[in-house]
Amino acid sequence: MEKTTDRKVYLDYMAGAPVLPEVMEVMLPYLKEIYGNPQSIHAWGDQSREALETARDQVTALINGNSEEIIFTASGTESNNLAVKGLAQGQLNRGKHIVISAIEHFSVLNTVRRLEKSGYEFSLVPVDKHGMIDPDEVINSIRKDTILVSIMHANGEVGTIQPIAEIAPKVKETGAVFHTDAVASTGNIPVDVQELQVDALSLAGNQFYGPKGSGALWVRKGVRLIPQTDGGIQENGRRPGTEDVCALVGLGKAAEIAKRELTSRAARLSQLRDYLIKGMMEKIDHVVLTGHPSRRLPHHASFSVEFIEGEAMLMFMNLDGIAVSSGSACTSKALKASHVLLAMGLPHEIAQGSLLLTLGLETQKEDIDYVLEKFPPIVDRLRQMSPLYAKFIKEGKNGNQ
Amino acid sequence: MEKTTDRKVYLDYMAGAPVLPEVMEVMLPYLKEIYGNPQSIHAWGDQSREALETARDQVTALINGNSEEIIFTASGTESNNLAVKGLAQGQLNRGKHIVISAIEHFSVLNTVRRLEKSGYEFSLVPVDKHGMIDPDEVINSIRKDTILVSIMHANGEVGTIQPIAEIAPKVKETGAVFHTDAVASTGNIPVDVQELQVDALSLAGNQFYGPKGSGALWVRKGVRLIPQTDGGIQENGRRPGTEDVCALVGLGKAAEIAKRELTSRAARLSQLRDYLIKGMMEKIDHVVLTGHPSRRLPHHASFSVEFIEGEAMLMFMNLDGIAVSSGSACTSKALKASHVLLAMGLPHEIAQGSLLLTLGLETQKEDIDYVLEKFPPIVDRLRQMSPLYAKFIKEGKNGNQ
Repeated sequence: MEKTTDRKVYLDYMAGAPVLPEVMEVMLPYLKEIYGNPQSIHAWGDQSREALETARDQVTALINGNSEEIIFTASGTESNNLAVKGLAQGQLNRGKHIVISAIEHFSVLNTVRRLEKSGYEFSLVPVDKHGMIDPDEVINSIRKDTILVSIMHANGEVGTIQPIAEIAPKVKETGAVFHTDAVASTGNIPVDVQELQVDALSLAGNQFYGPKGSGALWVRKGVRLIPQTDGGIQENGRRPGTEDVCALVGLGKAAEIAKRELTSRAARLSQLRDYLIKGMMEKIDHVVLTGHPSRRLPHHASFSVEFIEGEAMLMFMNLDGIAVSSGSACTSKALKASHVLLAMGLPHEIAQGSLLLTLGLETQKEDIDYVLEKFPPIVDRLRQMSPLYAKFIKEGKNGNQ
Repeated sequence: MEKTTDRKVYLDYMAGAPVLPEVMEVMLPYLKEIYGNPQSIHAWGDQSREALETARDQVTALINGNSEEIIFTASGTESNNLAVKGLAQGQLNRGKHIVISAIEHFSVLNTVRRLEKSGYEFSLVPVDKHGMIDPDEVINSIRKDTILVSIMHANGEVGTIQPIAEIAPKVKETGAVFHTDAVASTGNIPVDVQELQVDALSLAGNQFYGPKGSGALWVRKGVRLIPQTDGGIQENGRRPGTEDVCALVGLGKAAEIAKRELTSRAARLSQLRDYLIKGMMEKIDHVVLTGHPSRRLPHHASFSVEFIEGEAMLMFMNLDGIAVSSGSACTSKALKASHVLLAMGLPHEIAQGSLLLTLGLETQKEDIDYVLEKFPPIVDRLRQMSPLYAKFIKEGKNGNQ
């Protein structure tokens, strides 16, 4: 298919975002000039080691932890794997039962499925129609042998922010360890490990204008974690491998800037997001806002468009120069209805019309206007090709669907 | 301690190396301009996906594999973990015994130790005084239930290159899968997975002027590997997590350049290395070249200096502006005698005086001359402080040591 426009509107910031100019600036020296290994005993090593520790302090400051509690990783997925496997194995003497929500990212969900093969059991906590988790439901899922509860802070597909500060202390009263996947939230909304009262928290730099290939797991001091990578002494042996100083310096800088700017960013983006949501609901029939109407990520708008398949929308939007998503980039080609939307009770045929628009620093009102101009005709065109829509029309718009 | 010189000589390229200017040039756009997620269905995603596949082809070309057999990772350590754990778990139906050499990197050695905790067994193949492995010793270690043999291609601490092409086919006749850790060799000497006849091979970009944070595991088609990270669909589900396109584009470019230049680089560096080794042996008494005298990495010189402790040498060299190492950066602060040197039969007190100099693209003859000028007085000074040396002198240089 040929492109029909020169205009470009990128509304897929959660899948991929540029690195901030200030972040890139601090990274570049670590590619060409400061290349010592942080473990080396010489001036070159000292420079890299100091940079790494500065980055650790910056990440710490963003989430209000202690620097020695940060384990650097290469992605949010790696952080979640290390958290769930490492914490489960670390508490193995107390049981083999894990509780997660039904809408966790695949890096948590598939990780507990993997653990199941070695004798662990897990329970899925349901969510309501807004993708919200009831703290009581979490507690109801806890058994005597529950060692770990992992509930995400915010969902990347529907944007819903969970009441972690209500859930975590109740979980901890039972003796289970509490982890939260805060990959989608950290750097975008306030994330404070003390306020949230969690034991472990995953984050990733690419969610707040740091580089891809940078992530961290924060684990509260005293909580036992078994490393998932074996090798040398890096990260106190908890995550060996030559440190990617360049990426981690970028992560640190992005954290520092996010800490300073996230409130103003969120204020601006949530206005634009609300303008987008309002426009979509007004201009298109049979569209559902997915996720919570207010307790959602500030840069996040997600919908289900009835009678249409998500991927078709993406392709037509792309012809108009618009980049959006139909779900997590980790699964977007899998062409299956999202487990998140199904868990929220959306019928399969509606869940398939999933559309996710995530806004970012360069997003302007004009970009939203352009989408609101281009998208409705795409919906019309796709519905004209849709047998589901034809059936719906035939049976009468107000008839029995 | 204060620095005593403005001259800088960096001879620790294996621990850390700059990214080539051409590599950096191709990476930069993937930080700021081309930030789409390779899994996304739009033009931004297409650009990143194409870049990733180009990188995959470039890495493939360097080792003569097939592109669909490359799994991108974030480090050599991760590649080795994925290989050893993933292959062992993949062949679990046939047994639980693993064979590795006694001089493997900690990312292999500590990985089999980890597997031992879940019921696997392993045997260590000994090496001779040059760190060389006898193919027959490998075969002698194989049992009926041996499922995996992992022998490194070249050793990072002593530079010795193993006869993998002789070992691998014999191992495969027994039905075991053969993996080689080629992190130290790939990009520095010819590495051809067909000639070596291996089933799996680990490599890392930071060993050949690509970025830190980039690595790959090549696994021959048809060989069963269990993923060690769980999550989305990236790398065909074998290594999920948002792809670090920037680093991997750099890895690809570095591989392309290495393929073209490694012969000429190796010719130049091995001359300089030989000049360094000759100078060290002539100027310093009681020094041993560790590793094989000729079958060694072209940029690699390693010694044991008697009566001295490695870390003290590093600190005094640093004062003269010289960066060297006393072993693997993954263990350099552990202050223990290297398991590699001990396996080669070096007495503990000699192994402690380990010194590793690794040369690189910017190394010139003048740098070697500077080291040969500065190092002998450091040795003298340290030996004057050494009780071991005092004892040696007292008992007579030709007396009973």
